[in-house]
Amino acid sequence: MRNTFGNSLTITLFGESHGEAIGVTIDGLSSGIRIDEEFLNSMMDKRKPKGTISTMRKESDEIHIVSGVFNGYTTGTPLTIIINNENTISKDYESTKDLARPSHADYSADKRYLGYQDYRGGGHFSGRLTAPIVAAGAICMMELKTRSIKIASHIKRIGNIEDDDFNFEKIDTEMEKLNSQYFAVLNDEAGEKMQDLIEKMRNSLDSVGGVIETVVTGFPEGVGEPYFDSVESIISHGLFSIGAIKAVEFGDGIMMSEMMGSKANDAFRIKDGKVITTTNHNGGINGGITNGMPITIHSFIKPTPSIARIQDTVNFKTMNNETIEIKGRHDPCIVHRIRVVIDSMVAIALTDLLMMRSTTLTFNEEHKS
Amino acid sequence: MRNTFGNSLTITLFGESHGEAIGVTIDGLSSGIRIDEEFLNSMMDKRKPKGTISTMRKESDEIHIVSGVFNGYTTGTPLTIIINNENTISKDYESTKDLARPSHADYSADKRYLGYQDYRGGGHFSGRLTAPIVAAGAICMMELKTRSIKIASHIKRIGNIEDDDFNFEKIDTEMEKLNSQYFAVLNDEAGEKMQDLIEKMRNSLDSVGGVIETVVTGFPEGVGEPYFDSVESIISHGLFSIGAIKAVEFGDGIMMSEMMGSKANDAFRIKDGKVITTTNHNGGINGGITNGMPITIHSFIKPTPSIARIQDTVNFKTMNNETIEIKGRHDPCIVHRIRVVIDSMVAIALTDLLMMRSTTLTFNEEHKS
Amino acid sequence: MRNTFGNSLTITLFGESHGEAIGVTIDGLSSGIRIDEEFLNSMMDKRKPKGTISTMRKESDEIHIVSGVFNGYTTGTPLTIIINNENTISKDYESTKDLARPSHADYSADKRYLGYQDYRGGGHFSGRLTAPIVAAGAICMMELKTRSIKIASHIKRIGNIEDDDFNFEKIDTEMEKLNSQYFAVLNDEAGEKMQDLIEKMRNSLDSVGGVIETVVTGFPEGVGEPYFDSVESIISHGLFSIGAIKAVEFGDGIMMSEMMGSKANDAFRIKDGKVITTTNHNGGINGGITNGMPITIHSFIKPTPSIARIQDTVNFKTMNNETIEIKGRHDPCIVHRIRVVIDSMVAIALTDLLMMRSTTLTFNEEHKS
Amino acid sequence: MRNTFGNSLTITLFGESHGEAIGVTIDGLSSGIRIDEEFLNSMMDKRKPKGTISTMRKESDEIHIVSGVFNGYTTGTPLTIIINNENTISKDYESTKDLARPSHADYSADKRYLGYQDYRGGGHFSGRLTAPIVAAGAICMMELKTRSIKIASHIKRIGNIEDDDFNFEKIDTEMEKLNSQYFAVLNDEAGEKMQDLIEKMRNSLDSVGGVIETVVTGFPEGVGEPYFDSVESIISHGLFSIGAIKAVEFGDGIMMSEMMGSKANDAFRIKDGKVITTTNHNGGINGGITNGMPITIHSFIKPTPSIARIQDTVNFKTMNNETIEIKGRHDPCIVHRIRVVIDSMVAIALTDLLMMRSTTLTFNEEHKS
Repeated sequence: MRNTFGNSLTITLFGESHGEAIGVTIDGLSSGIRIDEEFLNSMMDKRKPKGTISTMRKESDEIHIVSGVFNGYTTGTPLTIIINNENTISKDYESTKDLARPSHADYSADKRYLGYQDYRGGGHFSGRLTAPIVAAGAICMMELKTRSIKIASHIKRIGNIEDDDFNFEKIDTEMEKLNSQYFAVLNDEAGEKMQDLIEKMRNSLDSVGGVIETVVTGFPEGVGEPYFDSVESIISHGLFSIGAIKAVEFGDGIMMSEMMGSKANDAFRIKDGKVITTTNHNGGINGGITNGMPITIHSFIKPTPSIARIQDTVNFKTMNNETIEIKGRHDPCIVHRIRVVIDSMVAIALTDLLMMRSTTLTFNEEHKS
Repeated sequence: MRNTFGNSLTITLFGESHGEAIGVTIDGLSSGIRIDEEFLNSMMDKRKPKGTISTMRKESDEIHIVSGVFNGYTTGTPLTIIINNENTISKDYESTKDLARPSHADYSADKRYLGYQDYRGGGHFSGRLTAPIVAAGAICMMELKTRSIKIASHIKRIGNIEDDDFNFEKIDTEMEKLNSQYFAVLNDEAGEKMQDLIEKMRNSLDSVGGVIETVVTGFPEGVGEPYFDSVESIISHGLFSIGAIKAVEFGDGIMMSEMMGSKANDAFRIKDGKVITTTNHNGGINGGITNGMPITIHSFIKPTPSIARIQDTVNFKTMNNETIEIKGRHDPCIVHRIRVVIDSMVAIALTDLLMMRSTTLTFNEEHKS
Repeated sequence: MRNTFGNSLTITLFGESHGEAIGVTIDGLSSGIRIDEEFLNSMMDKRKPKGTISTMRKESDEIHIVSGVFNGYTTGTPLTIIINNENTISKDYESTKDLARPSHADYSADKRYLGYQDYRGGGHFSGRLTAPIVAAGAICMMELKTRSIKIASHIKRIGNIEDDDFNFEKIDTEMEKLNSQYFAVLNDEAGEKMQDLIEKMRNSLDSVGGVIETVVTGFPEGVGEPYFDSVESIISHGLFSIGAIKAVEFGDGIMMSEMMGSKANDAFRIKDGKVITTTNHNGGINGGITNGMPITIHSFIKPTPSIARIQDTVNFKTMNNETIEIKGRHDPCIVHRIRVVIDSMVAIALTDLLMMRSTTLTFNEEHKS
Repeated sequence: MRNTFGNSLTITLFGESHGEAIGVTIDGLSSGIRIDEEFLNSMMDKRKPKGTISTMRKESDEIHIVSGVFNGYTTGTPLTIIINNENTISKDYESTKDLARPSHADYSADKRYLGYQDYRGGGHFSGRLTAPIVAAGAICMMELKTRSIKIASHIKRIGNIEDDDFNFEKIDTEMEKLNSQYFAVLNDEAGEKMQDLIEKMRNSLDSVGGVIETVVTGFPEGVGEPYFDSVESIISHGLFSIGAIKAVEFGDGIMMSEMMGSKANDAFRIKDGKVITTTNHNGGINGGITNGMPITIHSFIKPTPSIARIQDTVNFKTMNNETIEIKGRHDPCIVHRIRVVIDSMVAIALTDLLMMRSTTLTFNEEHKS
């Protein structure tokens, strides 16, 4: 439903880049989740622009939990987070409001909202709206952590510079390292090269995209639904809400499309009294339902559309060809900042899936006894 | 909601492979859509196994519309389609019911449904359930066709054999050609090679995957919602309901993640009094909302997991390592059959998006006057 | 969503009175509920017309469960029930199709479906559609019974003839008696008078309405949500789906509106180590959430609109005043038949509420430990 | 979904009585509705306590629209309203937190939220949460007014003192009068008596309930859905979200249950080229769908549970019998204040129904042409 996501757990997003505030309401949370403010702030921190590889616009993004928390624990009633907009430079948006910035939503939004949209700084379409998503994701992670479910992502690629692959022999250590980093890579040397590339992009008034690889461990088997609430359906629905993501892959989905079945199939085995698969091309999901192996996801991120070069465009009111020079403070790359937004959307989707599962789990466990 | 998909238009799927019947209920349809049975049957026909490149199991898949149609037109009340299961060979499923077929849902379904699932022929997880999806998609296409919206797909790749790219100069002709084909390719020579590869897979008791590329033309601009009902979110949600699809890309999403912004951005121009973009890397969608350009989608399909070779697996009841030899009649490749399922899911998703849009469109148009 | 009801458990209704079939899909059921066919048939039996107090049209209403049940237990995948239409007399509906039967949906449906609705026998608006609701309710009751939750209703009033009030000292015995009756009353003498009144109505070509009082025992406290999923919201939403119901009261809602707070408040006390209230004016619900006391509901049912007298009406196509004489076999009273439909809707609503509750219950119980 | 209501238009409610703020998010609004602040404030004003017939607690209830409005018009993106909590007297809630106030949600909420609920002043269950509902209703009314749809309510009864019935000959004048009143009655003398009774209740440390009658004119025919989105289902779902309402009647629903069909049926006639009914016992709704006649609703309101007398109760933590004396500033009657909350819920429900209808209306109208 438009700006609401989820079934048993829902988040509702609101706000515009240059309005009074942005925020999110989370409904369906359990009662009694302890709010870990330090963790919440550390998540918000990963989304903030830092150094010369990001925009110079600084936002404090201070979190106000205005409902749903009492004495430090979730009550179970809707938890609403408000983030006030502060650092909104009053530049002349009026003069360029009918010019469609290439690869931005200005034109499509004008058709959708018939000219009534708030066009300042992208309005409701601004990347700023990912801040409340991170806040909501952090709350969900507090829940997931009590069940030993872990989520971590690394920057698999920026432009054509690749990070190492995960080593599942020491996945816990690797995930911990990533979750302590602002620029999350497994191979620090690759990380340096990526940041150099981003700097180069900034200097040439250009931008660059990349790939985020996410892994989830400790997630129980038997969660998900066969068709429209498959784990892939729910997670991709959430991920494609993030404007910059234009492709999503589960497991080795793209590579599998070139493989023969005899190679692509993940053989089942018993290991330490538990069912595992010897390979994990399916990324922990069979038939839309988790099988207990790590869930793996690749999100493909397009280069930031805001670049400082002069670009061809149209005035969609006068219907004339024009050029546009986007002023202001922009990110030459958002891959490293979008990482925590992806972690958050995955956390939200998985919490919802777990809760949906519990509707019938409770019933059945009683049947058994 | 589990087996229901959609907001303003919903489809609800039901049935098991070896149960009495499978089917679908479509709710929220307009009144007065003429039911074109010939078109409906031609769609069903594209999903059927044909020749030696498909399974030998033949199903008549006869459509029974039991409600929601009167005098040849949709009434607007729920339209339910029933397809009886006929050709169910009573082989001994009992003996292998606790063996997890690799890359199938047997194990994850057992954990989800606690041993109560219908395990015969994949049960609710069977590819047979895509038949009612095609029927529902055909009904939605009847609606879309009245507004000159067209959908077509080709087999972009099987294994490593590629079809030509679309030529948007003559896209109408190409789409028409594809929609008249059972094995849908733009380059017939490539098509021959693909079919040879599939035959080879069958002979070596193996299987192969591939890629379907879908294009939608004539879809109006300004449809979709900024976050959780973005066009990408809704379409991917539907596509990932199809078990074999493990990656979905909009526009040139994967390639864009390697591009610089100056190359990836689609410049706007006025052409014939209409806003267009000179390139279409974003696949017709900006900020989750259509911009009037063709919508383009790639679906990555894993090789059929059912292969006739002996494979390692486990008995998930006794918790022992075992081997399995999957008997029966299987598809060495389902890419060509899944093509029409993808067209159908896209049609369903787009009809829903159009209807969601109309909730506010009507209101606003009156404001203007 | 139109013909779908529920959150965690959903039912989707379809069919027309003179179409091929009517039916329902139930999704979100637990796996492993034993299907008690005898009980299911006994429920269907209570809805059937019997004797001279009901319509002469007899329907076999044979239940076909076409999916979601395997080896006698629910699988947990969608359970679809089909009931074929058999006894459809092919009278000339064509000639009266543009005449609006008073208090029926003919006119409003024509405006809603723009002339495309199936007008034969009320089409989708026919009381026949309550048959699948009863079937779905019976399935939900199988679940509720495993947790000792009981539902029973009596005919509190027909016209102005009243049945006795419940005696909560011996409520179990009374509920059992009611559930074994076709014409459910506590006072058999009152029941006789009611049936005499119905006969009298039939003879005078008239009809009569009444009130059904429902009681639910054994339902746990702490179920429901404060605002839009309050127990009253969910149950009334379901009950008002039944066309003949025009008012719904929880507890002593109507009487309470005349009382002073000092009399209307239900005092809490401890009894046998359990919290109870000394009166139950609130009908077991405080702030939208159950408090463990019996849930009590009154449904007010209008007289059957189909009467054999000549009535004033309009032809809504020619827009002329006309008269109409409704031919056919009609119920002079449906209160006794609607009783089991109400029990069923209440069962469906309460099963959904229980499942919604369990999404967070599971989580929390783990927190406690 | 818990604290979210609606299909095509949704409202999401959040906040606790003594938390930082309460509020609501409205999603699915049309773009371009002019925000009439004066009207919004006049609606908020009707809900405020005034004079000696209400609580002495005064709240400014200042509306902050933090998103979804730009240059005085709705954008079409989520509109969030925040109302800060100000006048929260820090009395010792701690000492009585485990005592269940009779007919309040304290006990049921404790079972629902497992002790984590914010118990101060009723928390999320406080009547304060109706303030954002009124704000949302006011926004919806701005939309409805552009289509000449009008809503008004009067206090039909307080205790046993009755107001006059509507006179539909001069309904426009009567509705206008009501909408200009704080204590909305048709007969001012009856209004005086009602207020005297309320004063009497206050003096005797008691409270009193009543009935609100609502009428909607100008609402188009053909809106609503046959079963689960019937007009009665949607409106009652909304109304029963208001804690004090324990019964809801459409048309003359209660009286109809005592009538014969020949009297209860509303005969159709043509008047001024339009289809009308000569009586309106069905309250403008046939088969769940509007027929163009005025929609009429009665809401039955229980007496305020907070009375200053000593009452029997339990301590639900120690499980002992206790007495409670509720301190503070309470309403001896909330019927007059709840009037505008009912108008608002009806406005929200009807706007949603209109928008749902438009999903198919648009389609069909194009078919016709």
